[in-house]
Amino acid sequence: MKINKQILLAKRPESVPDASTFKMVESQMPVPKENEVLVRTHYLSVDPYMRGRMKNIKSYAEPFQIGKPLTGDSIGEVILSKHPDFSIGEMVIGTFDWAEYSLRDGSELSKINLNEAPITTHLHVTGMTGLTAYFGLLDIGKPKPGETVVVSGAAGAVGMVVGQIAKIKGCRVVGIAGSDEKLKYLKDELGFDDIMNYKKVQDIYQELDRLCPNGIDVYYDNVGGEITDAAISLLNFHGRVPLCGQISMLNSENSEKGPRLFTHVIRRSILLKGFIYSDYQDRFEEGRQALAEWLMEGKIKYKETIVEGLENAPDALLGLFRGDNLGKQLVRLGE
Amino acid sequence: MKINKQILLAKRPESVPDASTFKMVESQMPVPKENEVLVRTHYLSVDPYMRGRMKNIKSYAEPFQIGKPLTGDSIGEVILSKHPDFSIGEMVIGTFDWAEYSLRDGSELSKINLNEAPITTHLHVTGMTGLTAYFGLLDIGKPKPGETVVVSGAAGAVGMVVGQIAKIKGCRVVGIAGSDEKLKYLKDELGFDDIMNYKKVQDIYQELDRLCPNGIDVYYDNVGGEITDAAISLLNFHGRVPLCGQISMLNSENSEKGPRLFTHVIRRSILLKGFIYSDYQDRFEEGRQALAEWLMEGKIKYKETIVEGLENAPDALLGLFRGDNLGKQLVRLGE
Repeated sequence: MKINKQILLAKRPESVPDASTFKMVESQMPVPKENEVLVRTHYLSVDPYMRGRMKNIKSYAEPFQIGKPLTGDSIGEVILSKHPDFSIGEMVIGTFDWAEYSLRDGSELSKINLNEAPITTHLHVTGMTGLTAYFGLLDIGKPKPGETVVVSGAAGAVGMVVGQIAKIKGCRVVGIAGSDEKLKYLKDELGFDDIMNYKKVQDIYQELDRLCPNGIDVYYDNVGGEITDAAISLLNFHGRVPLCGQISMLNSENSEKGPRLFTHVIRRSILLKGFIYSDYQDRFEEGRQALAEWLMEGKIKYKETIVEGLENAPDALLGLFRGDNLGKQLVRLGE
Repeated sequence: MKINKQILLAKRPESVPDASTFKMVESQMPVPKENEVLVRTHYLSVDPYMRGRMKNIKSYAEPFQIGKPLTGDSIGEVILSKHPDFSIGEMVIGTFDWAEYSLRDGSELSKINLNEAPITTHLHVTGMTGLTAYFGLLDIGKPKPGETVVVSGAAGAVGMVVGQIAKIKGCRVVGIAGSDEKLKYLKDELGFDDIMNYKKVQDIYQELDRLCPNGIDVYYDNVGGEITDAAISLLNFHGRVPLCGQISMLNSENSEKGPRLFTHVIRRSILLKGFIYSDYQDRFEEGRQALAEWLMEGKIKYKETIVEGLENAPDALLGLFRGDNLGKQLVRLGE
């Protein structure tokens, strides 16, 4: 009997998750029924929103269930198939379990075109995080040439793509992150115009003000908290804020307080819009094509932080909140 | 020599303005030069945003200057004219001084069609507050039939029109205000579906939750603060928030703190948009026509609170923050 290793949610974390949040178990390898496909995982995507799914809160994604495997965007290989569209050996993308093997209905899987781009980019630049950057920046942010775009969480998988699309659109781009090494990469390799290490500045507002002498037109928010307070306060008339993530808030239970900013939001006719990439489901093809083209032309570069082995996936997730990753965090599973 | 009474800004208030904020003076009656018109004020509009203009802060409207007259939307009669388009005796609307007489360039004035609607409605239903309601609700709120629309400051000049337009659009409307008498008017006369006296409830969030069993789709915000925190927390997926005013915040200097709500805003893909009616300048005619039609058809009713005499204008403004007014607050100046 073949064994399948899985990572389950052991309990809901109260604040910062730790090793006790997860449990690795061995179970029996599942067998596909009619229309089902068994896939072996090659890559797991590790994303900040997964922390949100550990809470028992109604949101765009269903909460993870205690005692059940975590799930996430993944790439794998078809091992057994009872679905007419899939054959053994084909590479597919879908929402798999955090496990060596997952059983899925064929309708939940998509085949990957291996000639298009490096296979892992389907999990970021041309996948969820790239589409998140694309639609948030272009549909909500609507950047115009010459405008100032500030992006927080700039060295993450979403932030890096946001900054590079803003450069493609002719904007001045300021990236905010928490490590000099990451910021150097953004400036030297990705063409960001300026950078700010929020951990090293005395006063976030004053430093951001200095870096944005013409004010801010678009603030793409991945982090929330004090950085966001400062950026919103510096927005120009008709400024726009795609609200994508609040990583600084993810491990708190909404008890944090901050300054009330709506008077300023009204004075400046500012737009704030929360969103999730799936709001744009009917435009995915447009986004994927544009991103793939920019990737091929070298206009969008990327970084991946890859850890090896399913057993290290929990720590890779915890690492997102420690700021360990540069670019996209992935887990690779061996044979 | 004829005398002109004026109300000046005596000093910038630190928190709540009081009598010492204003100064009434007598000056010489001005005389029109080429293209200028001298108007005698009949009605002054008294609006919450005027408190904002007492602060020395860059905003959509210029700050009032110490030692200069306050100004605001007004209706008056042409007394002297050196502008070819205006004749003595004509009724005009414009931004006049808080004064018996104002001198204006003819280009700053518009004639009033006296056959269209009661003259004072040009200062509210078909004027600034009506247009504020119209564009905020329809362009930002985009209410659909059957949706739940909540409006705060519901018994003010903007709020009353918001609620009635939402009813015209087939929505369920819940109005929030601070007086049972006002709320009774909204429910009995204006057709609001439900009402909440925020001063009398134990827990604003719980009561609003009870009044909105299907959640909130559009929250039209005139007040800010705790009411707004509760309403945003109850918004449905793709909820929309026209941010029109923050009257609860107007007398504080932005030092207030509140819960951080952006995690919820992201989870529900919520839109928040600050605005001022003049953002829609190129669509004023559309708005005016729709509002005038609804007014004529009796689909929009209104209330005015009118005080007599220029000397009572300062207290009428202070009354807005005490919640004295039902509907539009006006000052009438006699001969």
